[in-house]
Amino acid sequence: MIPSAKDKTLFTPGPLTTSLDVKQAMLRDAGSWHFEFNAKVQAIREKVLDLAGVSQAAGFECILLQGSGTFGVESVFSTALPQEGKVLVLANGAYGERMIAMLECLRIDHVVLRTAEDVTPDPEVVAETLEKDSGISHIAMVHCETTTGILNPIEAIGHVTRKAGRTFIVDAMSSFGGMPIDFERCGIDFLITSANKCLEGVPGFSIVLARRTSLEANPSLPRCLSLDLMAQLKGFEKNGQFRYSPPTHSLLAFERALHELEMEGGIQARGNRYRANHEALMEGMKGLGFRSYLPPETQSYLITSFHYPDDPTFTFDAFYRQLSDRGMIIYPGKISQVDLFRIGSIGRIFVSDVQALVGAIGATLNDLQISL
Amino acid sequence: MIPSAKDKTLFTPGPLTTSLDVKQAMLRDAGSWHFEFNAKVQAIREKVLDLAGVSQAAGFECILLQGSGTFGVESVFSTALPQEGKVLVLANGAYGERMIAMLECLRIDHVVLRTAEDVTPDPEVVAETLEKDSGISHIAMVHCETTTGILNPIEAIGHVTRKAGRTFIVDAMSSFGGMPIDFERCGIDFLITSANKCLEGVPGFSIVLARRTSLEANPSLPRCLSLDLMAQLKGFEKNGQFRYSPPTHSLLAFERALHELEMEGGIQARGNRYRANHEALMEGMKGLGFRSYLPPETQSYLITSFHYPDDPTFTFDAFYRQLSDRGMIIYPGKISQVDLFRIGSIGRIFVSDVQALVGAIGATLNDLQISL
Repeated sequence: MIPSAKDKTLFTPGPLTTSLDVKQAMLRDAGSWHFEFNAKVQAIREKVLDLAGVSQAAGFECILLQGSGTFGVESVFSTALPQEGKVLVLANGAYGERMIAMLECLRIDHVVLRTAEDVTPDPEVVAETLEKDSGISHIAMVHCETTTGILNPIEAIGHVTRKAGRTFIVDAMSSFGGMPIDFERCGIDFLITSANKCLEGVPGFSIVLARRTSLEANPSLPRCLSLDLMAQLKGFEKNGQFRYSPPTHSLLAFERALHELEMEGGIQARGNRYRANHEALMEGMKGLGFRSYLPPETQSYLITSFHYPDDPTFTFDAFYRQLSDRGMIIYPGKISQVDLFRIGSIGRIFVSDVQALVGAIGATLNDLQISL
Repeated sequence: MIPSAKDKTLFTPGPLTTSLDVKQAMLRDAGSWHFEFNAKVQAIREKVLDLAGVSQAAGFECILLQGSGTFGVESVFSTALPQEGKVLVLANGAYGERMIAMLECLRIDHVVLRTAEDVTPDPEVVAETLEKDSGISHIAMVHCETTTGILNPIEAIGHVTRKAGRTFIVDAMSSFGGMPIDFERCGIDFLITSANKCLEGVPGFSIVLARRTSLEANPSLPRCLSLDLMAQLKGFEKNGQFRYSPPTHSLLAFERALHELEMEGGIQARGNRYRANHEALMEGMKGLGFRSYLPPETQSYLITSFHYPDDPTFTFDAFYRQLSDRGMIIYPGKISQVDLFRIGSIGRIFVSDVQALVGAIGATLNDLQISL
C-alpha cells in the first residue's frame, strides 16, 4: 500500500473520487456505542435535514441505514407500504426496473408506467393512471436515472401525486447534494440517497429522508428486520445509536464530507462545479466527434451517455482499458438498450480533470486508430 | 482531524481497534466496477474460504454482503428457507432473540428452544425436538453469544443436526477468525461472520460461507432483493462484481486485514493472543475483586461479562465515563437480564493493553470510592 500513490480518477456515478481529507477521517477507530460517536451521528442526521431544506418541525426525519443505496430504496417499500398498498413505478432505466424487482420480491402490488430510456414520464398520463386506479397508494420514480443520465421531472410528477393524495417516493441517489431539490414544491414524502454520490463521502450507508406520517402509515409487522426503517429511527431516538453495527469509518468520513460541502458553499455551489465539469465534457467530446445520447432538455449535468463510435473496429473493452492505463476510469458495463458508455461529472473532480480525460480519450482513439 | 492523535482503545465486541495499516488501506478510491478492484474481491472471497478450511470443490461459497452482520444472518433466512421451511432457533441471549425477530418479520415458521443466558443448549433435547417435529428443516444458533460471551456447543449440536438430516445455520459473528471452527466436524451449512470482528477489518459488510446446495434449496422468488444471497453470488460469478455499490474502502481495509492475519500466523495464533488477553483480564479483574458471570466451561476467551460491584453507589454510567476519560472504551449497555458489563479481548489489542485497562479500572474504582 503506497498511500501517496495517485489513484486513478473516477468518472463514474459512484463510488467516486473523494478528497484526501475525507479518506483521512477514516484513520480512526470509533466505538459504535460510544457517546462521542453517537453525537456525531446525531449531528450528521441534523445536517442532512438542513441540506434538504426540511426539518423535524416540518415532519421530516433523516434515517441512515447500513448498506448501499439499493438497501435504502428497498427499506422504504419494505417499511412504509401497508399490506393493501400499491405502487405506481415510473421506469425509464435500470434503477426504475430495480424498484419493480424489489416490489416483486416483497410481494407488494404494483403497476408500471414504462417509457423509453430517453423519454421522461408524462405527468398527464400519470394523473390519468391515478384517477383510473384508486388502489394506487404510492408513486415511485428515479430522479436522475444513472442508466443514461436522464433527469426525470420530479416536480411535475410530485404535483400530480400530491393533487391525487398519494405518497411520493423519489430515488435521488445520483442527484441529492449535486443539485437543489425543493421538497415542498416536489411534494416529496420519501427521498433516498447515498453517502457516496454527490455528497462525496465513501460508501457504507444510505440516507432516507422521510415524512414521519408516511413512514408510520403501515401498521403491520415489517417485512424485513434489517431494512425496518421505523425501528432504525426509533433506535436513533432511543439512545442515538444504530440498531446494528454501523460503518463507523464511513460515518467519520461523511462528517468530513458534509463539512467540505459547506466549505464549498453548499449544494448550489457544488452543482455549479458539476455543471462546469459537464460543460467541459460536452465541449471536449463534441470536439472529438462523439455524439451524446440525450437531448439537452432532459440531460442532467451529473452523468452523460455517449454513443459508441460508428467505426466497426471500436470495442468498449479496449477503449476502457487504455483509459484505465492512462489513469482514468469511466463507467464500464452497459445497462442501456443501446450502445452507450457513460461518464460522470461528480465527485472531487474539476474542469482540469475533465480536460485531462478528454485528452486521454483523444490519445486513446489515436492509438486504437478509431475514427469518428 | 488529527490522524496522529491516539484513539481510545476499544474493549468491545466490535467494531474494534484495528491496525493503522488496515485503516491506511482506505486512503484510496477504487472503482467498484473496475477489473483491478474485482480481482481483489475475488481474492478476498477465496482467502476466506481457505481460512474456513472449506473450498468450492467441497461445495462451499463465500458471499460478501453490504451491511452489518445482522444483514448477513437475515439474508440466509430470507434466501435459503423454502416457503414450507421451519427453523428451530436455540436462543440464550440477544442475538438468538434477534434471529427470532427476523423470522417473525420474514413470516418464516419457527420454534424456539430457549435456555438461560448462562446455560448452553442440550444436544439431547435438540435431538428429541427434531425427532418429534419432522417439519423442522433448519437449526439456527449463535456460536459465541455477545450478550454474555458464552460459547455454545456448535459441534455437538451440529452432530445432532446432521444425523437428523437438517440444515445447520451458525452465527459466528464474534468467533470466526478468533478461534478455529471445523466445518466438517460441526456439519455447518451456513456460517455468518463480519469484517469487523476477529478478522480485524473495519465495518461495512458481512460474510456468509454457504454450502451451495443448501443455498439453492429454496426454489421460490426471494423474500427481499437486497438480501438475496443467491443473486449476490451469481453477480460475483458473472463478472466479479457486487450487484450493488460495495463499501470499496472497507474491502481495501479487509484485504490488508487478511494479510495481517496471515502474518500473525493464522487463526490459531490469533486465538492464542486473544486467549492471553482474556487470561490477563480475568487475573486482573479477579485481583480487583470482580466476579465473572459464566463458569469457566462455557466462558469464551472473546468476550467476558462481569457482575456489577455490590456497592450501592456504583453506577455503570459514571464507571464507563471515567474509563472513557482514561482512553478505554468497554462495552456499554446491558442486554442481559442480570446486571453485567462486558469486556472484549479481541481486535488489535495485546496483553499490555488489557493490563492498562485493568489499571484504569482500579484507578476508577478508587476515584469513585467503590469498594468490592
